[in-house]
Amino acid sequence: MTLVDSEYFCKTMAIILDGSIAAASIRTEIAEAVKSSVAKGNRPPGLVAILVGEDGASQTYVGAKKTACDEVGFAGDVRRFAADITEAELMAEIEKINVDETIDGLIVQLPLPKHISEEKVTQAILPGKDVDGFHDINMGKLAKGDETGVKPATPYGITLLMKHYGIDASGKHVVVVGRSNIVGRPMSMLLSAAAPYGNATVTLCHSRTKDLASFTRMADILVVALGKPGFVTADMVKEGAVIIDVGTTRVDDASRKSGWRLRGDVDYDAVLDKVSAITPVPKGVGPMTITGLMMNTLEVYKAKFA
Amino acid sequence: MTLVDSEYFCKTMAIILDGSIAAASIRTEIAEAVKSSVAKGNRPPGLVAILVGEDGASQTYVGAKKTACDEVGFAGDVRRFAADITEAELMAEIEKINVDETIDGLIVQLPLPKHISEEKVTQAILPGKDVDGFHDINMGKLAKGDETGVKPATPYGITLLMKHYGIDASGKHVVVVGRSNIVGRPMSMLLSAAAPYGNATVTLCHSRTKDLASFTRMADILVVALGKPGFVTADMVKEGAVIIDVGTTRVDDASRKSGWRLRGDVDYDAVLDKVSAITPVPKGVGPMTITGLMMNTLEVYKAKFA
Repeated sequence: MTLVDSEYFCKTMAIILDGSIAAASIRTEIAEAVKSSVAKGNRPPGLVAILVGEDGASQTYVGAKKTACDEVGFAGDVRRFAADITEAELMAEIEKINVDETIDGLIVQLPLPKHISEEKVTQAILPGKDVDGFHDINMGKLAKGDETGVKPATPYGITLLMKHYGIDASGKHVVVVGRSNIVGRPMSMLLSAAAPYGNATVTLCHSRTKDLASFTRMADILVVALGKPGFVTADMVKEGAVIIDVGTTRVDDASRKSGWRLRGDVDYDAVLDKVSAITPVPKGVGPMTITGLMMNTLEVYKAKFA
Repeated sequence: MTLVDSEYFCKTMAIILDGSIAAASIRTEIAEAVKSSVAKGNRPPGLVAILVGEDGASQTYVGAKKTACDEVGFAGDVRRFAADITEAELMAEIEKINVDETIDGLIVQLPLPKHISEEKVTQAILPGKDVDGFHDINMGKLAKGDETGVKPATPYGITLLMKHYGIDASGKHVVVVGRSNIVGRPMSMLLSAAAPYGNATVTLCHSRTKDLASFTRMADILVVALGKPGFVTADMVKEGAVIIDVGTTRVDDASRKSGWRLRGDVDYDAVLDKVSAITPVPKGVGPMTITGLMMNTLEVYKAKFA
């Protein structure tokens, strides 16, 4: 064995935070919880997805959610409406679901046609059924660290992924890059909360941050949600850091039949030897959004059938 | 002139961020806005404070709010109820004010007697009249960086103080110490938002933060809201930093007739020579909470009489 070989084998390998594996394991737990509740004579959890129009990506997302429902034993229902449904008609459909006691969770797949206000629709969902966690009341409870709210699905899914791989944020310095309402801002609030998944010291960086690398290099745990493929290079991460890459952007790839592949915000190959753990793209954070959604639905359900 | 004198005069003096001066100036602006609206035939802004029981400190706070109303020309009204008012009776009073079109802002002075849920009462206030900014919907909008919500009074007041003294947070590294729902968490959200008072890179520290001084020493702007008098010492702050001290704790002081004085979380005398600007205690952040409240009320009012 040469010295080079020995060095190679002594090097600690980065743990790949595989969202498919974590999601499968968590969904098995959810399925068992459902099975045991149904065995007691309870109805299964009910999750409705509203799909307006024929957008291809939306159909794929909703299809994946329906499949996940089937897997875990939820009564999953996709309600499809034509793109020319009026806002008032859609609001009436939401109200029907709000008062339906057999339905625990309601998601409205975005984007909606331009004549319908996404904000109005999001705020019309009963906060207790808002398993995407987008309602102002749920965001407010998140902001207050109040555990009675429904947590935003993607950030919550990320905490489930971390938990699955034994990554404890408590006392760590987490640097979040990107301040979107769907990922960056809620992620920073979850991880700084006085809660089992929280207690980290969190720095929130964004487009106005000066010398971004000086912040990312400090991170024990670096969460990147920018949508800029390969933006985070090896010199921007600390040796031994945990990397959560939320970015998924289509980039050209002539070697694929499709002509494209998904790429994250982090230069994965370049940082791999430097970090202690990293999410791949795809199959890192991606599967955890639906898992967060399923877990939210289960929690809403459990509160009724405890 | 000796060398010592010359050094003394060459040294940049820290700017004292005097909340009384800023508050007086902002209240003058508010008074002018009210005067000009009333001159057009509009009613003045209406602010109601509910006071339950005889707590001395609460009476002082409510009294100060009433005085501030009189100063700026608001129709300020204190509604007093006995400590044995039932929760249902109090909720009915809140509902009356919620539907009263002449009232723009409603605050319920905390603490409430133990038989009344503060959370329930806070959430019963119409979000659009919640000029303390404590309602979940307002916290949710804050979390989303949505400017249509009412901002929490103390953090908002701090941004007004900073603005008065020309301190721009944009692109600065702000370190907030303390994660309360009233100051630390909302402060971190306001200052990181994509808004005129925001755009800072914000780190939120708390009781679980490891090596706190390593964070405070990085701060361009350090906001401390801990309630631990004199906790932040000179070695914990960066040369030239801006210090916002939200702490106000009574400490023994034999030299005073009262036997006590108010002290902040920062060792003021020790850091004074090192920093570029600092809030004193008292008369730093203190007067800005009521100013935030007045400004919130004016903004709610203006939205109706624009």
